This record gives sequence, C-alpha cells and structure tokens, in this order.
Amino acid sequence: MRLRAALPILALALASCRSAGSGGEGPLGARRVLDLTYSLNERGPYWPGGGYFPFTTEPLASIETHGVFSQSYRTPEHLGTHVDAPAHFEKGEWTIDRIPVERFFGPGVVIDMTERARADADATLGIDDVLAFEAAHGRVPEGAIVFLRTGWGRRWDDVAAYRNADASGAMHFPGYSAAAADFLARQRKVAALGIDTLSVDPGPSRDYGAHHAGNRQNVYFIENVARLEELPATGFGVIVAPIKIEGGSGGQARVFALLD
Amino acid sequence: MRLRAALPILALALASCRSAGSGGEGPLGARRVLDLTYSLNERGPYWPGGGYFPFTTEPLASIETHGVFSQSYRTPEHLGTHVDAPAHFEKGEWTIDRIPVERFFGPGVVIDMTERARADADATLGIDDVLAFEAAHGRVPEGAIVFLRTGWGRRWDDVAAYRNADASGAMHFPGYSAAAADFLARQRKVAALGIDTLSVDPGPSRDYGAHHAGNRQNVYFIENVARLEELPATGFGVIVAPIKIEGGSGGQARVFALLD
Repeated sequence: MRLRAALPILALALASCRSAGSGGEGPLGARRVLDLTYSLNERGPYWPGGGYFPFTTEPLASIETHGVFSQSYRTPEHLGTHVDAPAHFEKGEWTIDRIPVERFFGPGVVIDMTERARADADATLGIDDVLAFEAAHGRVPEGAIVFLRTGWGRRWDDVAAYRNADASGAMHFPGYSAAAADFLARQRKVAALGIDTLSVDPGPSRDYGAHHAGNRQNVYFIENVARLEELPATGFGVIVAPIKIEGGSGGQARVFALLD
Repeated sequence: MRLRAALPILALALASCRSAGSGGEGPLGARRVLDLTYSLNERGPYWPGGGYFPFTTEPLASIETHGVFSQSYRTPEHLGTHVDAPAHFEKGEWTIDRIPVERFFGPGVVIDMTERARADADATLGIDDVLAFEAAHGRVPEGAIVFLRTGWGRRWDDVAAYRNADASGAMHFPGYSAAAADFLARQRKVAALGIDTLSVDPGPSRDYGAHHAGNRQNVYFIENVARLEELPATGFGVIVAPIKIEGGSGGQARVFALLD
C-alpha cells in the first residue's frame, strides 16, 4: 500500500532522530510519543442508549490457580477511545477492516474551541471557525487527522458531567457542525475527524449531520480522544490503530501523537 | 515519554519521504506500510482450551432499522493478532495498559526458520540460530521487535492445520526455545518477540519456558502475526498498537511494518 501525503509529516516529526544514533540522547531526547488513548474499564463513560453497555472483563485463568493470567472481554464497538468506520452511518462505505492503512498515518491538527464550549455546552464548530483557524495556523493539509479540542476531556472521570444530560435525557456537549465536517471532508480532504467528547456531532443532535457528512466522503472519526490539551495546533504526526474487526462498524483504537 | 533506541529506525524508514514533499510521488512512491494484522472473525484459529472461544459479534443496530450500523463483540484477550503483556505469565509485571509506549516502536528483525519447520513441526529456535542470524545480518539491536518466521502463516485459513494437533490433542508448531527467548531478552534487550503461530512457545510446550523467560524481563509477545513472508530480515520499522485494557493480560493489536 503506497503512502502519499501522510508519511512526510511523520518523517518530519521523527527525522532529527537520525542524527542521534542508536541509543543516544541529545536531539532525540526532545522527541515524544503521546498516548491519546483512555484505558478501558467498567467505569468509563459510554453512549447511553442503543443497547450500549460498559466495557466488561471476565477472568479465564489466574497465575495462582492456572499459572497464567488471562481474561475475556465484551464491549460495544463504539466505546472508549474508538474509531467510527465510514460504514457506521453510510451503507456500502468502508467497514473498520477496510479503511486503507495509509489513512491511519497523518499530520495532526488541533482546532480549539474550549472557551466557546465553556460558555455554551452545545457550541458547534462552523466553517468560519475552520477558516479562522487556517488564517492563524495555515491550511489544513490533505490527509490530516483533525482533532476538535472542546475541554471535555477534563470531565472524563465524571460520567454524568461528560454526558451532561438534561432532565429530558438530551445530552449537551460541543461538536462539529455538519457544514464544517462536510467542508473538511470535501474541501480539505482530511483522513479523519476526532474529538474529546462522546460524538463528533454535538450532544443534542438527532440527525447526526456531522457523522453523515464525513462518512459519506469515507472520512472516519475518532471519539473520546484523550489528552488533546497537551497537543499544539499543528506540527505533529498522528497514528491511529483500530482493532481489525471483519465487517465491523468501528472499534477501539490506540491513538499516538508524535511530537517535537 | 522519551524515545531512545526505537525511533531512529522509524526515522530511517521514513526519512526519504521528506524530499518528496506533500502529496508528491517519486521516492515516496517506494515507501510502504504493511498491515501485519489478521481480520477478526468467528472462523479464525484460537487457542484450544483455557476457556477460550471464538471472536463473536452481536448486532446492536442496523442502518435499515435504526439509521446506524453498530455491533458489540466478545473475545478472549489472546485471540487473533494479539499482544501478551508481561503480566500474562509473570505476577507484578506490566499489564497491557502499562507497557511504556516507546516499546511499541522499534526496528524490525525477521529470523527465518521456515525450512527447519517444514522438516520438523516442533522445531525450536536456539541461541546458535540467533548467532547464525547475526553473523549474516548483524547484531539484533536493543529495542528491536523480533519476528520468528516459521511458514505457519500459510496455514492461517485452515484451523486444523494451523493448530496441527495430534491424536492426544498436543499441538505441533515451531517456536522459540526458552534459552533463545532469554538470550534475546537479556543479552539483546529486545522490546518484543513475535511469531506467526498461536504461541511463542512451540506447540508441545507444557512449561511455557519462552513465555516465562521473556515476560520475566518485561518483554512482551506478539502472536499470530500476519504476512511475515513479505518482510526482509532487517531494515524496516515496526509499530505495535494493542487495545488498552486496564489491568489486561494482553489484547488484540494492530501491527504495522514500515518498509522501503
């Protein structure tokens, strides 16, 4: 599988490592991998409804009794830090096992809307916000893996605050507008859209416009991404590695940022 | 988290991408990512015994009925292409969520024993085999992710042939000797040992000597690795991305090779 736009950014992120030599410190000491993945457990927030349930492990063997420690687990595909495949909302698009691997490597972009989300939990990213970001940080590159930072990551350990449901059960958290998702998918040809909430659509959404707009263009999503507050706006590489479920609609992913 | 020996090899694998520029072909066109991961389904080989069962999905929602496609799944941690954490066999060592992330990036090494395994399904890799490999290809570098290629990958689609059990139920496939695993862990300080069979120990093993020898040194394992026959002996980078189960003994992993 050939790589085009994605790999140069990883190379840039890593290239000065060459001069350090094997095992050396120096310039290499400044390079970091950041794990943007939450650990999976029974306590973490998950989507309420749709038959969803918490991540659950069951023991198979213990070192004390069997000489080996082993478990099984059961989970919705869309729980924890996970990928939504294009087939999640669009019939005939890629299932999780069919996303071309070069789309898992890309330049990282973080668009921040923490301040707006603090004032309005239902705030949505518009096309104008993307253009304002580009005026400050440069054009979102083709093949980019874009993260929307809303500040919701601070709520991860408080399930009620993370879901932020009102008395009617409607959730309130920020997200991408359908227009911004469509713009990034079609005009910027991004590989993926990520966010630090339960969904790329804002909490109250009923039509899942951002999901449809992205999935329709074979853009995949990464939800419940951790540690976005530790990332710069640009200048880092991203690796997304989802579990390879045959015909799956999505699945748990390990997500790494490669930073200066 | 700082990276030391691991990243220079990835940088080498990717560095010429820099000259290609964004979106360019040319030297970049020659660079490839190889997905060393099998797709997870109900048919694939899994460990017989220990309460293990096939990978199973259950529908949660369909686009026809619910406007969205979503599933749950259930699986042993040690099924398909997966990582054994050091805690799998050694009490107090790292669970899958605690393996430092820099150990997931390393220079790749493939030691081939396909011919020996063809003649003897119980063949084991010895220290002398490692030294013979090094005489031909150079020293196994610190932080390496080592793969033992046995030819078993060709049997993946035939569960009985992959397990290769005899009338007594004992399986017969090649593996690492405990001595070689200990040598690679302690004398070469590798990050991980991988293989294209169900286990790093040979099929008939009852004492799991290779597992203990590696896990004791906090070396993790990658089992059921796909497409090893497409890899060179050295000169490529590896990324291992396991599902991050809190306190897990192992879990499904996405494994990528970065090649010239």
